[in-house]
Amino acid sequence: MKAVVIATGDELVRGVHTDTNSGLIARRLATLSIECERFVVLGDDEEALSAELLRCVQLGRLAIVSGGLGPTLDDVTRAAFARACAVPLERHAECEARLRALLEARGREYTASNARQADVPRGARVLPNERGTADGFAMQMGAALLVALPGPPRELQPMLDEQVLPLAREHLQARGIAVPVVCDAVFRLSGLPEARFADLCGDWMERGRNPLVGVTASMGVLTATLRARGADEAEAQRLLVAQVTAFVERFRSWIWTEQDEELESALARELLEKNLTVALAESCTGGMVSARLTKVPGISRVYLRGWTTYSNQAKVDELGVPPALVEAHGAVSSPVAAAMARGACDRAGTRLGLSITGIAGPDGGTPTKPVGLVWLGLCVDGVVTTHERRYLALGRDFVREFATRDGLHLLLQATKGLGVNG
Amino acid sequence: MKAVVIATGDELVRGVHTDTNSGLIARRLATLSIECERFVVLGDDEEALSAELLRCVQLGRLAIVSGGLGPTLDDVTRAAFARACAVPLERHAECEARLRALLEARGREYTASNARQADVPRGARVLPNERGTADGFAMQMGAALLVALPGPPRELQPMLDEQVLPLAREHLQARGIAVPVVCDAVFRLSGLPEARFADLCGDWMERGRNPLVGVTASMGVLTATLRARGADEAEAQRLLVAQVTAFVERFRSWIWTEQDEELESALARELLEKNLTVALAESCTGGMVSARLTKVPGISRVYLRGWTTYSNQAKVDELGVPPALVEAHGAVSSPVAAAMARGACDRAGTRLGLSITGIAGPDGGTPTKPVGLVWLGLCVDGVVTTHERRYLALGRDFVREFATRDGLHLLLQATKGLGVNG
Repeated sequence: MKAVVIATGDELVRGVHTDTNSGLIARRLATLSIECERFVVLGDDEEALSAELLRCVQLGRLAIVSGGLGPTLDDVTRAAFARACAVPLERHAECEARLRALLEARGREYTASNARQADVPRGARVLPNERGTADGFAMQMGAALLVALPGPPRELQPMLDEQVLPLAREHLQARGIAVPVVCDAVFRLSGLPEARFADLCGDWMERGRNPLVGVTASMGVLTATLRARGADEAEAQRLLVAQVTAFVERFRSWIWTEQDEELESALARELLEKNLTVALAESCTGGMVSARLTKVPGISRVYLRGWTTYSNQAKVDELGVPPALVEAHGAVSSPVAAAMARGACDRAGTRLGLSITGIAGPDGGTPTKPVGLVWLGLCVDGVVTTHERRYLALGRDFVREFATRDGLHLLLQATKGLGVNG
Repeated sequence: MKAVVIATGDELVRGVHTDTNSGLIARRLATLSIECERFVVLGDDEEALSAELLRCVQLGRLAIVSGGLGPTLDDVTRAAFARACAVPLERHAECEARLRALLEARGREYTASNARQADVPRGARVLPNERGTADGFAMQMGAALLVALPGPPRELQPMLDEQVLPLAREHLQARGIAVPVVCDAVFRLSGLPEARFADLCGDWMERGRNPLVGVTASMGVLTATLRARGADEAEAQRLLVAQVTAFVERFRSWIWTEQDEELESALARELLEKNLTVALAESCTGGMVSARLTKVPGISRVYLRGWTTYSNQAKVDELGVPPALVEAHGAVSSPVAAAMARGACDRAGTRLGLSITGIAGPDGGTPTKPVGLVWLGLCVDGVVTTHERRYLALGRDFVREFATRDGLHLLLQATKGLGVNG
């Protein structure tokens, strides 16, 4: 069974907002081995939507529509479903009762506009929305299954997982289509270009393979998904475990987490579990490592302080970098990075310290120190190492993002090598 | 004339990547008063794409396709166009010469796969791509105009502006359709909820009005676009100027820039123009203000240093906050915010200083100091003011984002009130 995913809203076809619901729906449907044939984005246009739905009925598709279930006249999804299925809209008593109670609890009046939200096409199965006023609904039309969901992702996502996927599974099973059980494992890797990853995978990434390895790349971080399908949970798990074992063996040196988590989360987990304190001294990244690390709740237990030492004088005053060192080697150099990292540790009294100093551009580059040159300093229990990076000069943001990633990554590698702090 | 915007790629319909090209294309087409009827996202499926194109030919639409112009077999856009227009693909000599030269310059071999990129449907007009290997092309089919563009936004965007929009304009004019001249003005506002903005606009936002005011909201910042249409440049400008005058009069106290720019860019411009130096002392925002400000090239001339003083001890050591103050009022308090801002100015020797201390959550809140409470301190030439904010506790990221925005905003307001530093 193939799916068509439809998003509605004038703001979408005018390019004011971007449709992210359809991608989410596609990723969830993949867990039932349902492929999406197309996404369609329409304005608030009843005729266009009903025509699209009718096409889905004729082709026996699963159609999932997001949006257009609000109380105003430009919310046309209910009417479009009724037209496509040639049934009238009917006031649904349970919907109405739920809606009245919800609005009352919020101290708002129940108006005629609101009442429109309790209209559903005759024969539809209502999908209650626990997080908003717009209930969804589903219509079975022969081989086709048509579903309407509210647009806001925080309402749509739980309804999709808790109601639509089970319904789609039932629909497939009732039609004698085997629905495999899908089990996933996710890894994140650094230090490996996507193309080299694909080469190393060999046939693991070949279309139709089971288990199948997929990968996406973002700012030098690879997210690899291992997906196994089985007739039952036991078979899927068995296949997945075998693939995970082989995958870890092959990619061990690049994997930094066996979860779908950000670098700062993995680092924070290590720091907190091992009770290791850290200080940060940033120049070209201007606080980006600090901002990333402080995204993680509870980090204040181990991240005590950080400096953005943008000027040379700040490096001297705040971190105790000897002025002669800056003069002799320049601010972007191994000795200055080392002195910054050591100074941060010393001043903050932490076991770990990280420094970053570089030329983010667009100006400030020289033939020997081009834009993209960054030195990172890492201090672990008083022992300092420095690390040179020469990033492609693809813009200031790019250099800063990559330097931030590498800084977090250096700290993560260091914490992995340390035991729990007594 | 209505448009259909089509994006192709298996990664898109699998939800791995999100299509942002179509929204960009829609926004650009709006400058010619061309509305988008629908977006369609397809996999790498020649048959589905040619069917969609054929439909556009039959309905006399402008169709713009992004993606599927690469050298591999799953790049099906060229073949789909040829099929929909019932013409053969032909090797295009100029395309081929350009491609050979480009690959040679990059030290890469010209292969049979590459040669596929020089195939275009017979009768198509080639749209040269100066930033990549995939040229685009356009086919006129009666009232319809079909355009193929490469998928990468940095290649697509200039081709759209420099080649496709003029072509679409020509196409409309040749068919006797008046193409209005569009003039835009953009403002950014803070401190005003979107609904209140709409109320204050009255009929300025009504569909079909000329000039028309539109608005989008993101993290409490409103971006308002004023768009005027005229038969010629002079008329459009005259309409726009009148609307801008009325708009500025009504919204003066909330407007912080008359450009489509980020808060940090507006602030950096003021600081650099007036040669005003600044220091930052952040607690709950953990370096986010610093990271935002250092996005702007050249900021090192005026932003000298910053601190992330996450622990109480750091506030005492680095910024000279009296320990008794922290003990008496707590770290999240007006007196501590004031002392942090003053301390940052004093230590860095700057004219301006900003501090932020708050409870971002999810833990750490109390009945008197709930999650979402943030104190901001502003020091201007030794005079300190403090500012309390109670943000909705919609999550740690939310509180931190809003505090960052308000910190930048306070600094911007302060710099606007200051003259050029002698």
